[in-house]
Amino acid sequence: MTDFIFKQVGLIGCGLIGSSTARAIREYGLAEKIVVLEKDAVAKEVLHLGLADAAGTDAVILKECDLVIFCTPLGAYEILASQISPYLQPGTIVSDVGSVKQAAVDILQDKLPAHAHFIPGHPIAGTENSGPSAGFAELFAERWFILTPLENDDADYQQSVKKLEQFWQRTKAKVTIMTPQHHDRVLAMTSHLPHLIAYTIVDTAVNLGSDLQDEVIQYSAGGFRDFTRIAASDPTMWRDIFLTNKEAVLDGLQRFTEDLAELQKAIRWGDGEKLFEVFTRTRAVRRSIVDQRQHMAEESKKKAS
Amino acid sequence: MTDFIFKQVGLIGCGLIGSSTARAIREYGLAEKIVVLEKDAVAKEVLHLGLADAAGTDAVILKECDLVIFCTPLGAYEILASQISPYLQPGTIVSDVGSVKQAAVDILQDKLPAHAHFIPGHPIAGTENSGPSAGFAELFAERWFILTPLENDDADYQQSVKKLEQFWQRTKAKVTIMTPQHHDRVLAMTSHLPHLIAYTIVDTAVNLGSDLQDEVIQYSAGGFRDFTRIAASDPTMWRDIFLTNKEAVLDGLQRFTEDLAELQKAIRWGDGEKLFEVFTRTRAVRRSIVDQRQHMAEESKKKAS
Repeated sequence: MTDFIFKQVGLIGCGLIGSSTARAIREYGLAEKIVVLEKDAVAKEVLHLGLADAAGTDAVILKECDLVIFCTPLGAYEILASQISPYLQPGTIVSDVGSVKQAAVDILQDKLPAHAHFIPGHPIAGTENSGPSAGFAELFAERWFILTPLENDDADYQQSVKKLEQFWQRTKAKVTIMTPQHHDRVLAMTSHLPHLIAYTIVDTAVNLGSDLQDEVIQYSAGGFRDFTRIAASDPTMWRDIFLTNKEAVLDGLQRFTEDLAELQKAIRWGDGEKLFEVFTRTRAVRRSIVDQRQHMAEESKKKAS
Repeated sequence: MTDFIFKQVGLIGCGLIGSSTARAIREYGLAEKIVVLEKDAVAKEVLHLGLADAAGTDAVILKECDLVIFCTPLGAYEILASQISPYLQPGTIVSDVGSVKQAAVDILQDKLPAHAHFIPGHPIAGTENSGPSAGFAELFAERWFILTPLENDDADYQQSVKKLEQFWQRTKAKVTIMTPQHHDRVLAMTSHLPHLIAYTIVDTAVNLGSDLQDEVIQYSAGGFRDFTRIAASDPTMWRDIFLTNKEAVLDGLQRFTEDLAELQKAIRWGDGEKLFEVFTRTRAVRRSIVDQRQHMAEESKKKAS
């Protein structure tokens, strides 16, 4: 293969996203070599699964990488940054896949050596499963990948941004660029708040007491079943998301609570017109999303042919 | 075919559930004849789709049915009950598929002739699509179907319950029996409250104003996208559900709001331990549901072989 984008990619953490990245690198021939920095047990599993050329607990493993990606929960960034920094070469691109971008910048920007090119990123992709065996090469296909580069006009840095963009595009992701703050505001609404609400309602069911709880599980219908899937997402990762995107999540939550109070009132007073009006409005949103996905699918078909 | 359960089934309303019932009746040979009572335009579509032997707007069409099923939103039950009652024969089973059972009893019990056997029911099955073309024969397969018979020890009535149970079992549904009140309490938690919350969060996104709203739709991640699907459910049906299962929904909502306030506080004060504890607890619920579904699938496989 002559069209590798990187010589050696280092993945810090190899859960769902990390192992999917490793698989995508192999599947699409994006790098010559993959190395993984992980806890001992996971590193062994990674090698057993054939996901990397080398895997281990010592950050020295990253020393020849031209791309290093943090694929751990945000809470682990700081200590890992100190560990890996001595081994990062000038011009090495350091990226991440964390769900809160301003926090990634705040934690990593000053901890990484100035000669590395730090370009935060976030794939809008995932499942409720975790661990190295949960990944698959197609995870990023036809999903958005948001890059939030630093304000840095340096030509080499901008060149690195282009290269990273190309890397993720080759996994069939649709890459877009925005500021960290804006990313966090949008994601609070599209992902963080929905997760918080799903966690809450499933916990409300748990708190019902064992009899009713068993039945709620047994007869879980469309709505609740979807929520349980969302509320099965990785606890560590989601704890870190809520701790680091606090302001935007609390703002979204405030708006949500106000809207919920309005519907509660409509139910209490039997205001069917109000309910009908809201339910009709929300139905239209689904149509927009379905239209958008069809459009994306058609575009990617056109590209392929 | 010699194993029809009914001679003639009358469906009042032929949307998602009605048309799926018609298709299941044909697919599994459950009745000799199907007739549909619907608005003129829908009746024509039903005939065009070949879903029934006869379809029309006049309740006289039901006069030879030994099973009649209300498949309309709850808000239409009362007026339809007056229209159809003159044509119901002694011993004809009248059932429904409405999502709130006590309301179905309250509306229909006194409106239907005493010589009919009224047996309310509710399939825990559905999609966000509606209309006669949205149905499919497999909709009920491996789903719960809850029957909430009246307290009536009459042997003929009990015989009718058995017959209706058998009918839905032949669509591959798993039939269970409970009281209307209990059904409504369980469903408030598993279905009604999740829908209310999904409607709310999608409406919160709509209320963000056009710029951010467009991006929320564009980058809709796992969480939000699932909510938009739920919030695209039929507005009329869901208005009627919230108006008729008011008490149980408001009770569930109260519990949910308390739990949400607790998580909000944990986020505000950076209480990661609390968040982690809740998120770990909710993850276990998913496992129970997955285990239960596997168990059901294995059981139905055993039966088939």
